Amino acid sequence: MVTTTVDLRSDTVTKPTESMRAAMANAEVDDDVLGSDPTAFRLEAEVAKKMGKEAGLFVPSGTMGNLICVLVHCEIRGSEVILGDNSHIHIYENGGIATLGGVHPRTVKNNDDGTMDIELIEASIRNPNWELLYPTTRLICLENTHANSGGRCLSVEYTDKVGELAKKHGLKLHIDGARIFNAATALGVDVKLLVQAADSVLVCLSKGLGAPVGSVIVGSEGFITKARRVRKALGGGMRQIGILCAAGLVALQENVGKLKEDHKKTKVLAGELNQINGLRVNIASVETNIIFIDMVEGSKITGEKLFKILKKHGVLVMLVTSSRIRIIMHNQISDDDVKRTVSCFQQAFAGVLDEHDN
Amino acid sequence: MVTTTVDLRSDTVTKPTESMRAAMANAEVDDDVLGSDPTAFRLEAEVAKKMGKEAGLFVPSGTMGNLICVLVHCEIRGSEVILGDNSHIHIYENGGIATLGGVHPRTVKNNDDGTMDIELIEASIRNPNWELLYPTTRLICLENTHANSGGRCLSVEYTDKVGELAKKHGLKLHIDGARIFNAATALGVDVKLLVQAADSVLVCLSKGLGAPVGSVIVGSEGFITKARRVRKALGGGMRQIGILCAAGLVALQENVGKLKEDHKKTKVLAGELNQINGLRVNIASVETNIIFIDMVEGSKITGEKLFKILKKHGVLVMLVTSSRIRIIMHNQISDDDVKRTVSCFQQAFAGVLDEHDN
Amino acid sequence: MVTTTVDLRSDTVTKPTESMRAAMANAEVDDDVLGSDPTAFRLEAEVAKKMGKEAGLFVPSGTMGNLICVLVHCEIRGSEVILGDNSHIHIYENGGIATLGGVHPRTVKNNDDGTMDIELIEASIRNPNWELLYPTTRLICLENTHANSGGRCLSVEYTDKVGELAKKHGLKLHIDGARIFNAATALGVDVKLLVQAADSVLVCLSKGLGAPVGSVIVGSEGFITKARRVRKALGGGMRQIGILCAAGLVALQENVGKLKEDHKKTKVLAGELNQINGLRVNIASVETNIIFIDMVEGSKITGEKLFKILKKHGVLVMLVTSSRIRIIMHNQISDDDVKRTVSCFQQAFAGVLDEHDN
Amino acid sequence: MVTTTVDLRSDTVTKPTESMRAAMANAEVDDDVLGSDPTAFRLEAEVAKKMGKEAGLFVPSGTMGNLICVLVHCEIRGSEVILGDNSHIHIYENGGIATLGGVHPRTVKNNDDGTMDIELIEASIRNPNWELLYPTTRLICLENTHANSGGRCLSVEYTDKVGELAKKHGLKLHIDGARIFNAATALGVDVKLLVQAADSVLVCLSKGLGAPVGSVIVGSEGFITKARRVRKALGGGMRQIGILCAAGLVALQENVGKLKEDHKKTKVLAGELNQINGLRVNIASVETNIIFIDMVEGSKITGEKLFKILKKHGVLVMLVTSSRIRIIMHNQISDDDVKRTVSCFQQAFAGVLDEHDN
Repeated sequence: MVTTTVDLRSDTVTKPTESMRAAMANAEVDDDVLGSDPTAFRLEAEVAKKMGKEAGLFVPSGTMGNLICVLVHCEIRGSEVILGDNSHIHIYENGGIATLGGVHPRTVKNNDDGTMDIELIEASIRNPNWELLYPTTRLICLENTHANSGGRCLSVEYTDKVGELAKKHGLKLHIDGARIFNAATALGVDVKLLVQAADSVLVCLSKGLGAPVGSVIVGSEGFITKARRVRKALGGGMRQIGILCAAGLVALQENVGKLKEDHKKTKVLAGELNQINGLRVNIASVETNIIFIDMVEGSKITGEKLFKILKKHGVLVMLVTSSRIRIIMHNQISDDDVKRTVSCFQQAFAGVLDEHDN
Repeated sequence: MVTTTVDLRSDTVTKPTESMRAAMANAEVDDDVLGSDPTAFRLEAEVAKKMGKEAGLFVPSGTMGNLICVLVHCEIRGSEVILGDNSHIHIYENGGIATLGGVHPRTVKNNDDGTMDIELIEASIRNPNWELLYPTTRLICLENTHANSGGRCLSVEYTDKVGELAKKHGLKLHIDGARIFNAATALGVDVKLLVQAADSVLVCLSKGLGAPVGSVIVGSEGFITKARRVRKALGGGMRQIGILCAAGLVALQENVGKLKEDHKKTKVLAGELNQINGLRVNIASVETNIIFIDMVEGSKITGEKLFKILKKHGVLVMLVTSSRIRIIMHNQISDDDVKRTVSCFQQAFAGVLDEHDN
Repeated sequence: MVTTTVDLRSDTVTKPTESMRAAMANAEVDDDVLGSDPTAFRLEAEVAKKMGKEAGLFVPSGTMGNLICVLVHCEIRGSEVILGDNSHIHIYENGGIATLGGVHPRTVKNNDDGTMDIELIEASIRNPNWELLYPTTRLICLENTHANSGGRCLSVEYTDKVGELAKKHGLKLHIDGARIFNAATALGVDVKLLVQAADSVLVCLSKGLGAPVGSVIVGSEGFITKARRVRKALGGGMRQIGILCAAGLVALQENVGKLKEDHKKTKVLAGELNQINGLRVNIASVETNIIFIDMVEGSKITGEKLFKILKKHGVLVMLVTSSRIRIIMHNQISDDDVKRTVSCFQQAFAGVLDEHDN
Repeated sequence: MVTTTVDLRSDTVTKPTESMRAAMANAEVDDDVLGSDPTAFRLEAEVAKKMGKEAGLFVPSGTMGNLICVLVHCEIRGSEVILGDNSHIHIYENGGIATLGGVHPRTVKNNDDGTMDIELIEASIRNPNWELLYPTTRLICLENTHANSGGRCLSVEYTDKVGELAKKHGLKLHIDGARIFNAATALGVDVKLLVQAADSVLVCLSKGLGAPVGSVIVGSEGFITKARRVRKALGGGMRQIGILCAAGLVALQENVGKLKEDHKKTKVLAGELNQINGLRVNIASVETNIIFIDMVEGSKITGEKLFKILKKHGVLVMLVTSSRIRIIMHNQISDDDVKRTVSCFQQAFAGVLDEHDN
């Protein structure tokens, strides 16, 4: 009988730890909309420092963080942003930059490793001489790690090149760094270097870092002043957020170091799953904590069926399409959980488990 | 020497109580974006039930709650909303309904008691026969209590009349009930009756109710399904929000009953301040927890000077204009705090206190 | 038997004269989107010169002209415009500035003479210190003549005062001068003086001036460069518009001088109609070419019935509400037409005419 | 000495013919905003009939026509449109659908022949089950002929397949048929068949058909009613447009038949230019009236220089990039003009002509 669940739907499912709960219970707080929550200030300064930027701003979610950054960089009507055709902003954020902000997206093909070819980016920048017909390119967005490519990392070198391109054309560079600490961990570099070329960065505290709620955006002082206003307009200004920020500070202190273990477990799990007949994992793409599992053609069971079997037996995953399943590892998955997951997959394919209730 | 502060800037400055902190530390949580936070469900159901509506949705702020409700009711391009010219949505929410949602506001004069004349509302509804030139009226917004009129209450009767008008013209009715429990308390009616005519209501937990963060919007099941999606687009979808919702549940249980005391203290304070030569408080307008204090012409000191003196001596208020100060009462202000506040005002006018450091 | 129609619905119903048709048939043209229509250049330069501005731009309609001007002045997201609550932009242009441009309108009461009190305008300007909660005021709009007040004129003095206020607060001033030549004619001043305080002006050629299509906006060179781009985005860039501009040039040459006659006929008609029992015209408000006719309480016939009787007998007017009719005079209405109109009104009230077919 | 110009920048440069000028001079007109211009009605009905749709609407430009159609089909906030990554709407219309309408574009790769793979279109349709994260797909846009692929034609079969796909998923289909008559001519099919699958079509009168100004959109009665309102909001409602519509009617009567000749001349010109060393024309792609001319690597002269030489000697073309020139043929280019153009290109490469003034 299954009593507990192995929740691999996302690293966002991580629950606050005892130390986070204690920190929240004891957090020093004040009204942040009135500009006076001390714990928020500490968290914002801490993230800004780690990222090598002047200032930070706590936001309720990664989606809002990205939206604010795009809206600030593209504050003038008629702006266009260049971003990956498989990027989180373009695919998973409700089209908010256009729907709410009127910003026109121009996509460039995302390669398998999450990069976009520099030449393609440059070719997509609008020629100002034709501005009668064109929107104005104002921003390039990168995503690191790149979720839809399986959590792959953009290198310092690549990011800096895109930064140079942006500067050359007078554009801003935003990095959707929802999992930037995973990238820094996997690449073994100071996270500062990964974002040194960026004018703004979004960092999520509620994914692998395990905080219950929240993200932080960083940039120059002037940028954050504008961002604060856009946050208020979107309804992201909250009162005693020191509660949440206290957990964020614990997340930064305690959990950044654990990402290394997450990646190790991810590789183990990916390797084991790839052994199963009927499944395929692109092992080379498993650089951090995400696994995409594809059903091979002629596989005995469909993705839907596999998803249901796993769910019935306490292993929660994400069904991306009828032939693709996504797993995201986090620090609340034990080695035993990994083993149990492998076993469930194996037994499903062996026909031992099924999706029906007994 | 002043050691503590009497913070009367707003009822949003209330800090989480011990019971709230305990509830947050022990909250049962899960990923609410994935639709599974049990404490959020409890809070949302609880508020919906109190309001007599089918469903509820936790949102990070009152601003976002109002914005979502307007965007859902006005989901078709070319919508117009009728609202008070002195309403919170029109004055204090960054113009977000137009800026982010493209909704055209049509204002009607707010009377001193926060109402708008029914005939003026009706006269502002666009004639569909002229739709070639007009936007389409889709929504009426009321605000109860009405902040900028000094926290005055809209009656059940008035609200129902506006509801009838809305129905007659096929419009929706939204109530910005950031302080709707203050209205219910002051009027001595079940809050349900105050919103029975509404298609959607926003209720704030982080004002007089004292929760650190959050508001809840309520409406029909179908409305809340759409609202959930708009919340995600705005970036208001958060993860383990059970933390915040647990505090919200405590707020509902413990603090609704305290609003009566807040109103009593407010009246006392208003009465005392109105005795001071150089100040004027419209006592008749003090129905709940807000006081507007106007400097009379020829007053010895300006609003700015008074503001600074009070601040220096530990009494924080809001300077609305150079001749108007706003105070909002809450349950973390003691009777002694009220006395100290009165005394500070008195001494300021007596010339005993000044704004300079000693 | 009625053979011709007296069309008083608007001055927009004027049909191109023989000289305009000849000018259109012979107009020198080229592709204006490619920037090379010589007749457009001539018209734009001519209007700019008359208005005392650097440059002009032909636009398909007054609505587009106003929309472009607001969008250019408010190109940054989060802008607010101050305008009359009874202004054409606010009432009759589909709410386009918000719907399409995300600009937040802030209305000030229009007085009976079309002005807004200077102090009320100033009080509506947002305090930049509160920008966390506020949109940013960027523009004030005036309308001269003011259509909904009955075509009344704003004086040079008033306009200049508003211009000073705008400058003092770093705002732009736009004048919706759809009928600005009527104002200049009625006031007996050079039109230049009426717009000297403005950063942009819209002038219509297709109203009292009688051109079949088109308006011109004027402003600085930099403003018009931006306006040209917004015009293209809205779809207002057209090809061989020299055709239309040729008629516009004739309108300027031949018809500005005729406005005086229009005003004279309007006064005659207003005076006669005001004699009729059951009708009331505010004679004092008839300054240019517009008449609002109100049914007095207890009038024998309703507005709808009067409208139908007039229509049946070949006199077309606009039914604004069930008790208000609007007439706009133009140069294709003869003295005989005026007499016939008066006679129709009189007979309708005398019960001689009815709305049914014989 | 050059006395006349061969203007090959676009087919939009065509000047109104004598018969058009006569038609305009004699057009029966009335105020179209008030819904009463008879010549507009005739033109709109005529185009609708040719297209096999219920109703039509005259619009000032192709850009506005496309914008209106997208806004009507995507009237609900949060809509996404699928369109070609090289389509006119995505590249050359200022990003207006996002900037002004908040519609999120999702691009699919345009093949060399202007099609998008049906499977790629289908894969881009958003899964409604994930609507919490996704905008809602509401529209597919095709372009026929496809300008940026060199004026290539989409077949009836292809268009019908996309139409079936749209129906299957409850989506609308819009065809940007700015040059749809060119496609019908080249394919030798009734234009009706090319748009039978579409819910709306834009047709331009001011390109190869030679009218000075204007386009027509067609669709169902209900669609056109909504379109009329959006046109007004955008400022595209104009007064006595019978003037322009009269020329449009002549264009339809006299010039549709001439497109065949345009295509023939285009093929001749393309063939001759392709003979020149240093240039390359993809002859296979020349199906209608557009030629893209690429400078081969190592060509003696750059695109810029060639552009200037041609211009100096009276041949106007469009410089798309530094190595690509575009030519669009029309009925005001004679066989002699074609010869002269070829000769200019030849002499430029022979070094006989240069770009400097003598």
